[in-house]
Amino acid sequence: MHYFSSDFKLGILGGGQLGKMLLYETRKWDIQTKVLDTSKEAPCKIACNEFVLGSLMDFDTVYNFGKDVNILTIEIENVNTDALEKLEEEGVKVYPQPSALRIIQNKATQKLFYTDNDIPTSPFTRFAYTSEIEDSISNGGLELPFVWKSAQFGYDGQGVKVVRSVSDLEGLPNVECIAEQMVNFKNELAVIVARSTKGEIKTYPVVEMEFHPEANQVEYVICPARIDEKVAQKAREVALKVADKIQHVGLLAVELFQTQEDTILVNEVAPRPHNSGHYSIEASYTNQFEQHIRAILGLPLGNTDSKVAGVMVNLVGAENHTGNVVYENIEEIIQLDGVTPHIYGKKQTRPFRKMGHVTIVDEDMTRAREVAQKVKEKIKVVSKG
Amino acid sequence: MHYFSSDFKLGILGGGQLGKMLLYETRKWDIQTKVLDTSKEAPCKIACNEFVLGSLMDFDTVYNFGKDVNILTIEIENVNTDALEKLEEEGVKVYPQPSALRIIQNKATQKLFYTDNDIPTSPFTRFAYTSEIEDSISNGGLELPFVWKSAQFGYDGQGVKVVRSVSDLEGLPNVECIAEQMVNFKNELAVIVARSTKGEIKTYPVVEMEFHPEANQVEYVICPARIDEKVAQKAREVALKVADKIQHVGLLAVELFQTQEDTILVNEVAPRPHNSGHYSIEASYTNQFEQHIRAILGLPLGNTDSKVAGVMVNLVGAENHTGNVVYENIEEIIQLDGVTPHIYGKKQTRPFRKMGHVTIVDEDMTRAREVAQKVKEKIKVVSKG
Repeated sequence: MHYFSSDFKLGILGGGQLGKMLLYETRKWDIQTKVLDTSKEAPCKIACNEFVLGSLMDFDTVYNFGKDVNILTIEIENVNTDALEKLEEEGVKVYPQPSALRIIQNKATQKLFYTDNDIPTSPFTRFAYTSEIEDSISNGGLELPFVWKSAQFGYDGQGVKVVRSVSDLEGLPNVECIAEQMVNFKNELAVIVARSTKGEIKTYPVVEMEFHPEANQVEYVICPARIDEKVAQKAREVALKVADKIQHVGLLAVELFQTQEDTILVNEVAPRPHNSGHYSIEASYTNQFEQHIRAILGLPLGNTDSKVAGVMVNLVGAENHTGNVVYENIEEIIQLDGVTPHIYGKKQTRPFRKMGHVTIVDEDMTRAREVAQKVKEKIKVVSKG
Repeated sequence: MHYFSSDFKLGILGGGQLGKMLLYETRKWDIQTKVLDTSKEAPCKIACNEFVLGSLMDFDTVYNFGKDVNILTIEIENVNTDALEKLEEEGVKVYPQPSALRIIQNKATQKLFYTDNDIPTSPFTRFAYTSEIEDSISNGGLELPFVWKSAQFGYDGQGVKVVRSVSDLEGLPNVECIAEQMVNFKNELAVIVARSTKGEIKTYPVVEMEFHPEANQVEYVICPARIDEKVAQKAREVALKVADKIQHVGLLAVELFQTQEDTILVNEVAPRPHNSGHYSIEASYTNQFEQHIRAILGLPLGNTDSKVAGVMVNLVGAENHTGNVVYENIEEIIQLDGVTPHIYGKKQTRPFRKMGHVTIVDEDMTRAREVAQKVKEKIKVVSKG
């Protein structure tokens, strides 16, 4: 099969920033693409060959979208898997596979999968409805504090809450959810595993994540993680085990906790290019988006090593700012060596909305981290006027 | 002025591969673009916000295209400069400036500019028509051999011919041209100079070029050039002098000869991102396309240093192959570490047509050069069936 400047067509479910960055790679290789998204202002709308407006969760929409593509992939996991299964039965190649998406889409199912497969993860209880939690606390079945997670559709810090007292349950949606024991961790780490249709497997270096306290969004991603090589080795092994058990095809981003005792626990996974891999565009020999394309097309996987150290800063909307976006002081930050802003193209900012990211690369990690700090302090994502 | 996710609009004259790679950067920063090209299959057609079909040499087409953009730039120098001058008078910012394009567009004018400004270049004679050359030879005014160059519209090896005997003149178009003394050079070098609207100036490292003997197209571009630092310094100085004399805004790619005596002579210049800078996408802290955007928008220029050594191989159509393109053995080359093919998206191949390029990066230049050799030997740009 020829993929380059040919009739081959890649379908992508979701047209957000991950899709947009994926399209840099399909453009680079002149691979034809067709994108489905719910918004006519989707960042992917231009740069794909064909754009279809519609719901990713609607069976008919997804099924009809996928019928005429050769390979179908995703940039967001909340899609209609029934339609994907039907397409798969009818011969469309779907990567990641619907079976993998089913495990990952639902956080309760995902956690059960870990325990069933001896993959280390924090203890949890599954509830059909949030309303069941209070009883469970009062009859001693569940101890405070814990982390409440909606089983489905959690994204960008939504659908996650630390519950320290019963009153914290107020206002939470009454949906299927899990209560996770809080992990007293030293570090949050992530490992991106690439696994191709041919079964070839490569891991990216272990990265270290720093989260924004309120927004529960990644504030800095640091590659390589400043951790002991033994811990890094353990992290890679756990990530590889997850990818192997899922028999995942494509990229699998595995978020991990490093406990005070240096145990590695799986937090959650994403079956696609991931925020924790954005640094790879500037820092790696093969960026995560090209790697995803290589994996799902069954091409040889690329070198996952880094050319230089990388730090990534998310650009999220400032608090108390909603409206037409303005990126303040962007000229100041691009004066600094090794600084590359990525603007996703969302015209409207909202508090904590992911609007872009900035990558800082340098031969020296300490310097990269210092520059990242300056970037973080200077740039502001605000609304006009 | 806000450029990112704003109403600002950048116009680009030309929608070929250089424009396509420029659009990766405007997409990255969410800068609105409008592109003019003569072909409805132009590589730029998707990924720009607005595509206009029309001739770059037609006054009205270029003038009407440029009226509603804030800044107008080019990805090819053969455009209607009269229209650009009118737009400039009417307040549209045009970078590079029409005055610079006038000097560069015509090779006779360009050579005269060098001699007028004490910029070292090889001796030449200008002819209004190729037909005048034979007389000049017979009356001893011109000595064989020499390099014939059409004054205008030379591109990708067209419009250039080495003339060793009078018979070599046969079949050459009877147009304005120059006869250049052949330079006995050690190396062909290139330096890309970036000069911003604010007058900030930076140079990229000196690169070394190897040309394909028949096609007169670059076969390898090697960064950094494997030359003495004194020579590199001299090359940068000459390149900076050219940019300064032209008062150029944007990127200026200066092609140079290093003679046997290590004299540096200017061969010719291109007022835009250039084939000799493609390595920068993978190898440099700031790639040439982002740098061009920074320069014409008056943003601070980025770091021109390299993260790693880079070698670039052009992908040109194989001889005796015309038709729908197929890239043979592309899977074999992307197995090699640090290899990135760029496929421009031209559906039809022709002998020696520029269809793409491959960048090879490595910490070690020797290894990069070895891999480049393998890439060159393996990949074939052929036509189907």
